[in-house]
Amino acid sequence: MNTTVSLTKVPAKRPCNRLSPVPLSAVALSDSFWAPRQAVNREVTLPTQYEQCETTGRLDNFRRVSGRKECEFSGIFFNDSDIYKLLEAVAYCLPGDPKLTAMADSIIDEVGAAQDENGYLNTYFSLERKGARWTNLKDMHELYCAGHLIEAAVAHFESTGSTSILDVARRLADHICDTFGSVADGKREGACGHEEVEHALVALYRATNEPRYLEQARYFIGAHGASPSAMYWPSTSAPWWDFNRRYHQDHVKFEDLKDVVGHSVRMMYYACGAADVYAETGNTQWLAALEAQWSNMTQRRMYVTGGLGARWDGEAFGDDWELTERAYAETCAAIGSIMWNKRMLQIDGDARYADLMELQLFNAMLAGLSLSGDQYFYQNPLADGGTHRRQPWFGCACCPPNVARLLGSLPGYFYSVDQDSVWVHLFAQGAVRFELDGGPVQLRQETNYPWDGDIHIEVVEAPASMTALQIRIPAWAEGATVQVNDERVDTATAGSYARIDRSWAAGDIVRVHLPMQPRWVTADPRVFATAGKVALMRGPIVYCIEQADFPAGIDVRDVAVSKAAKLDARFETETLGGITVLRTSGKVIDRSAWDGALYRDAVDVRYTAADVDVVAIPYYAWANREAGPMTVWIHSVG
Amino acid sequence: MNTTVSLTKVPAKRPCNRLSPVPLSAVALSDSFWAPRQAVNREVTLPTQYEQCETTGRLDNFRRVSGRKECEFSGIFFNDSDIYKLLEAVAYCLPGDPKLTAMADSIIDEVGAAQDENGYLNTYFSLERKGARWTNLKDMHELYCAGHLIEAAVAHFESTGSTSILDVARRLADHICDTFGSVADGKREGACGHEEVEHALVALYRATNEPRYLEQARYFIGAHGASPSAMYWPSTSAPWWDFNRRYHQDHVKFEDLKDVVGHSVRMMYYACGAADVYAETGNTQWLAALEAQWSNMTQRRMYVTGGLGARWDGEAFGDDWELTERAYAETCAAIGSIMWNKRMLQIDGDARYADLMELQLFNAMLAGLSLSGDQYFYQNPLADGGTHRRQPWFGCACCPPNVARLLGSLPGYFYSVDQDSVWVHLFAQGAVRFELDGGPVQLRQETNYPWDGDIHIEVVEAPASMTALQIRIPAWAEGATVQVNDERVDTATAGSYARIDRSWAAGDIVRVHLPMQPRWVTADPRVFATAGKVALMRGPIVYCIEQADFPAGIDVRDVAVSKAAKLDARFETETLGGITVLRTSGKVIDRSAWDGALYRDAVDVRYTAADVDVVAIPYYAWANREAGPMTVWIHSVG
Repeated sequence: MNTTVSLTKVPAKRPCNRLSPVPLSAVALSDSFWAPRQAVNREVTLPTQYEQCETTGRLDNFRRVSGRKECEFSGIFFNDSDIYKLLEAVAYCLPGDPKLTAMADSIIDEVGAAQDENGYLNTYFSLERKGARWTNLKDMHELYCAGHLIEAAVAHFESTGSTSILDVARRLADHICDTFGSVADGKREGACGHEEVEHALVALYRATNEPRYLEQARYFIGAHGASPSAMYWPSTSAPWWDFNRRYHQDHVKFEDLKDVVGHSVRMMYYACGAADVYAETGNTQWLAALEAQWSNMTQRRMYVTGGLGARWDGEAFGDDWELTERAYAETCAAIGSIMWNKRMLQIDGDARYADLMELQLFNAMLAGLSLSGDQYFYQNPLADGGTHRRQPWFGCACCPPNVARLLGSLPGYFYSVDQDSVWVHLFAQGAVRFELDGGPVQLRQETNYPWDGDIHIEVVEAPASMTALQIRIPAWAEGATVQVNDERVDTATAGSYARIDRSWAAGDIVRVHLPMQPRWVTADPRVFATAGKVALMRGPIVYCIEQADFPAGIDVRDVAVSKAAKLDARFETETLGGITVLRTSGKVIDRSAWDGALYRDAVDVRYTAADVDVVAIPYYAWANREAGPMTVWIHSVG
Repeated sequence: MNTTVSLTKVPAKRPCNRLSPVPLSAVALSDSFWAPRQAVNREVTLPTQYEQCETTGRLDNFRRVSGRKECEFSGIFFNDSDIYKLLEAVAYCLPGDPKLTAMADSIIDEVGAAQDENGYLNTYFSLERKGARWTNLKDMHELYCAGHLIEAAVAHFESTGSTSILDVARRLADHICDTFGSVADGKREGACGHEEVEHALVALYRATNEPRYLEQARYFIGAHGASPSAMYWPSTSAPWWDFNRRYHQDHVKFEDLKDVVGHSVRMMYYACGAADVYAETGNTQWLAALEAQWSNMTQRRMYVTGGLGARWDGEAFGDDWELTERAYAETCAAIGSIMWNKRMLQIDGDARYADLMELQLFNAMLAGLSLSGDQYFYQNPLADGGTHRRQPWFGCACCPPNVARLLGSLPGYFYSVDQDSVWVHLFAQGAVRFELDGGPVQLRQETNYPWDGDIHIEVVEAPASMTALQIRIPAWAEGATVQVNDERVDTATAGSYARIDRSWAAGDIVRVHLPMQPRWVTADPRVFATAGKVALMRGPIVYCIEQADFPAGIDVRDVAVSKAAKLDARFETETLGGITVLRTSGKVIDRSAWDGALYRDAVDVRYTAADVDVVAIPYYAWANREAGPMTVWIHSVG
């Protein structure tokens, strides 16, 4: 087990946040769940994605602009963003890895050479389309691409200390700041139809201390909901232009947006930007809007997996309780939500944000990646007939590098600090070591989470200034217990942080026990698709039943389970990369009453004579075996 | 009651059909259901649609090409088709109506003046886009528009005897026949990405006896599934071109298409064309494919309303049993299916086709139109939160004139003849009179169908050559009885035609009794969205519950009904244009267990203490009062 970590200083707390995240460089995971996935990310995912970017012409688009290659523009107009997201992912993973360092340098070289003298950088709007720059911010993703460049640059700078790509990003950001703003300042109004640049600019502000980037982020968010829309230049009030402004979150001002609407990834990035600006400026109207959006999302528009976006048309959130089983649930939307919830968590330390972050990490995000690390889901349905399979790449390839950068940055989601305490948000075997004002802190987690609910946190080093540990007790963990050095602590309330005040000394051990009995879950009856059905969870993991575990004659969509039946949980090392399999006995609906008819006069549901062994696997692991039907929601026996 | 009808000759039976439809000119409806809707169609729908076509520039597009007006092209590239569909609707309704006659003449004048010398006619591809004609048959709807012109022309010719627009259509059809065909004949391969021209060409063949039009229809259908696709010129085998060929039914040959796939309206029109070609040529492979498609559609991919197309993305059929409540169920798709089923019915006289035709007429089609006659649904969801409302027009306005032409042509769906018998497919008070070889036939229906199941069919005139009446007994009418002059007939089997052989004389009366008890319906358990729910039908009418009939505190989506509870049916003249309202007592799900949580550990469903009076109205009549939630599928009490 590698617990050697460098000594990192935690960046200063942002003015309006309660917590400060411990950077990923301070955290080393050595568990059997995430660490192997990080290795696959470095060894399989990143190299194959680089190869895809090369063979699909995404890198050539830069060479074309820099004059290094003669070719046509390839692919979709926002393909630059895939390169940037890949670079960001590589940046998180490259310390100590010469191959990844070389990969980053190669990308940086190609990108930098394609930048205009005025700082503009977008390979689609260079050369022949130069005249159309910045005219259609609604659809053309120029600021979106710029945002991903900036995020990658900040990640690379923080990971390496080099400003090679940060300088490129700053020139582009300066060009953007010079271009967009109030007309009174001699600029052009603007807001991006695919949010992303907003939180990127705040990250750039934090990396450079240049306040104009923060101001620009604040401006862009504030420019939504303008009349006429700020997303088009020259501006227009033509009726067609008002079509579907909800899709771009452009129908109201941010402070008036009380639900999650439109394109779900854009909505999540928009919220990230507003949360970041709040952290710096304390705009309470925006915080209230963020909380309203969060409540609407989690209480009415989110799948049990944490998947977001019911609608395939528009990759969008549906209405309240519109959560059909053919979910869109774009992998990127889950990632955007994980990013947003990390931000909300730093604002006030409410455990609900960490709970959601964890739910989406294990289920909504992780389902997007094959166990092999080189196949991806763009959409994540909660039930399928067997035709939806992961793909090695997409024409619109936003999801693959997004998964890679999330996995690369994952250690940065585990811990935070505030004035006097260290917060433990996520659980996995490993270690964290960083510098507090009073001296170094080092903790070690020993656990087989998420398969096991026992987590031992050892204090290896602790300065006197650290007076408390705050450990998340997930909302599902009713009956959780916490001990310090064999002494029971009384603060283990599910859905909150167990705060343990103590004069900490090296060798102190906190033993957390989270009950891991499987749980049947039901949805609000207004969710049309799930009436009469139950889902199965254990710890943070959402389960499904997949045809590969059932006899050929029994369609998993006909299986019915009883909440009263015994549920057996067993860890199986050889199954699907090592998972806890859940087993119970179920019934099978007798469909003969329909006999080729889709509808018939109402009859009570009947079951076939023979019961069936029900095998449930984690949802994230489905579609890694032979194709067949799958469902998360299972018929419930009366 | 107007029973005066002109004496019409039934056109010759098509070679491979069993039945011949009695033309609409032979049928007069004088009932309280359809006749008032036909009047609204003539007096409200057609004039307001003409006005919409004028104000949205659809007519100006023709004037622009003919040089009568200087303006830009307005709207969507296939807007011509709306004018043609409106003309077709007007043509069905104009006999004896000077205003509608003038409207038709005005449209015909504008359309004819825009035709090219070579016969080409499409206002989008005239003038500046002339060079792009016929290059992208996949997307650009040129043949689709041509098909609607041809259908309108045939309707106008049959209604008036005038060839004013038929001549225009023939010139265009000749140009099409000269252009597309096998390369060996010096022509260009072609197939249309939005089917429509195929059955239109067969109609033109029947109206003109020109065999090249039939041959062209057969060719176009046969050109689907080619490699490379025949939908693009010059042809290409580029991989991007193979993207989503299922959407256009271009992935296999017609004879190999065994399910209903892709864009649902296109699929229906495609099937219409193939059924028409079968009727003329007897291609048994195509008939087998049509029957397979029909079985797939009705057993796995159709809403209980007869609505077609689950997916908003692509306006398309979903997978088997993918029938989510936010149905797309485009009004045009239901109309396409009604047209297709009329064709299947003539082929073999199987009552299942007439059953489906009727189901879709009363439910899937009729929901598309407001009671006022000037507002339309494009999509017909089976449950809604109250935001989906009918609109006066659409940018893509295919549905409104489609409803108008269906209502205009409706009398033509009621009766057929074969060698020796007259077939009664649909029921409504009214009369039919036409010429058989042996002399005139006249029947009168007296009934209050669909609210009442008693239908009296009086033989007013009958030649000796008419030896049988064949009367449809719907599949839902178990226990139906038939009497002739008070004498019970033993052939009333639900789901078939009751054949009554007899030497018919004036004054004979057939009394049909169809049981009208309300029925609870359940769906195949594999339909995810409807598990644990029931739908309510009475006769051919599908019911729903709408918020306007419930107290403000009770969301209709929380109502639960029991199959055992008493159901009361009462006709209410003043309600929603006169409907039979169904009433029962129901329970209300107690949602407090969720209390702001979307998901919680499984509990058994509980109900509030107070029961609720459940009022159900026909689905077609929803959204004609204040906005609010609606659902067809209702929770079922265990």
